[in-house]
Amino acid sequence: MEQETRLPESQPASPGTLRPGGRTAKVRRAVLDATRDALAESGFHALNMDRIAAGAGVGKTTVYRRWGSPVGLVTDLLRDMADQSLPAADTGSLAGDLRANAELVRDTLTDARMGAVFRAVIAAGACDEECARALADFYRTRLAEWAPVVARGGARGEIPAGTDPVELLRAVSAPLYYRFTVTREELTAAVVERAVSAALAAARDGVFLRP
Amino acid sequence: MEQETRLPESQPASPGTLRPGGRTAKVRRAVLDATRDALAESGFHALNMDRIAAGAGVGKTTVYRRWGSPVGLVTDLLRDMADQSLPAADTGSLAGDLRANAELVRDTLTDARMGAVFRAVIAAGACDEECARALADFYRTRLAEWAPVVARGGARGEIPAGTDPVELLRAVSAPLYYRFTVTREELTAAVVERAVSAALAAARDGVFLRP
Repeated sequence: MEQETRLPESQPASPGTLRPGGRTAKVRRAVLDATRDALAESGFHALNMDRIAAGAGVGKTTVYRRWGSPVGLVTDLLRDMADQSLPAADTGSLAGDLRANAELVRDTLTDARMGAVFRAVIAAGACDEECARALADFYRTRLAEWAPVVARGGARGEIPAGTDPVELLRAVSAPLYYRFTVTREELTAAVVERAVSAALAAARDGVFLRP
Repeated sequence: MEQETRLPESQPASPGTLRPGGRTAKVRRAVLDATRDALAESGFHALNMDRIAAGAGVGKTTVYRRWGSPVGLVTDLLRDMADQSLPAADTGSLAGDLRANAELVRDTLTDARMGAVFRAVIAAGACDEECARALADFYRTRLAEWAPVVARGGARGEIPAGTDPVELLRAVSAPLYYRFTVTREELTAAVVERAVSAALAAARDGVFLRP
């Protein structure tokens, strides 16, 4: 079995290079699901390669050879989460799209399971530089996916032309993540609404214009 | 020596109950300094009671009896950091005061030593509920200390009467902490300036009015 799951290269394969239904893809899915479950249940510091292998029904040697360490598991999980993430909204107004974005962030962070996963990967990023880079990549991908929302709002004249899309999207997310990671305050509907209104007011005022 | 440093109660003493120059206060100072140094150097998960005792020049029994666990050390350090924090600015304008606040946050998080301490206590908050509560208390104290800045700005007519001071202050901090903990982007002078301008634009627009 170890032989069958061996990869041709020593680097973790990026998902695009694999046939989705192939054995390698199935092993990756099982291992990343087990990693996500373990992070949700016990956090980053309890992540154990042997238990992940057992949970995924995959040989230990495969997990060590392909992911190397708990850090390797977390960075590949973040890559997979970026690939699997939902497409950006298109509600017809910038306020509607930004509200959809903020609600998606809120729903994810307040979901018992996914909230625990995000808390664990953010803690991993605080403890390990490779995890920090993978976390930064994850958010760079997410922000880039939503950037067209802001461009469309600009084209409709809802905000000044030349508004930096990513800067506006960061302003929507920041109050939610600040409460989630730092002040540990509840992410209520009012928090979502204020995050959107505040970001839009600043955008209309020209605060996020490209320099 | 263990006898001399024993406290009359089993709970960690709050600093206000101790003579500042007394032996108990000196032991606390040495232990919290050693805790801060250890967090800056190796993070929360490497925090070791025996090494803290050795680093502080204090008997192990004292450290175990008084702080109980690494979590006890972190929560007492956060209490001490709240007590030691600098007073709020009073520059004569709300924009000036908020800029001073944002620069203080930026200077703290980008300082090699203090940035590492904050990263460690935020990671501790992600891993332990007692640390999370202590972290929330720390920010509650800090935000309350700066609230008069917003009240003065309201009295001078710089923002609408009825603006929630803490909501506005959170809006200034959020973009800085979001980059520090989540997206790991650099805290430049431009980031500080945009955080202040965006929060002020939203406040003037009435986004932070009390419901």
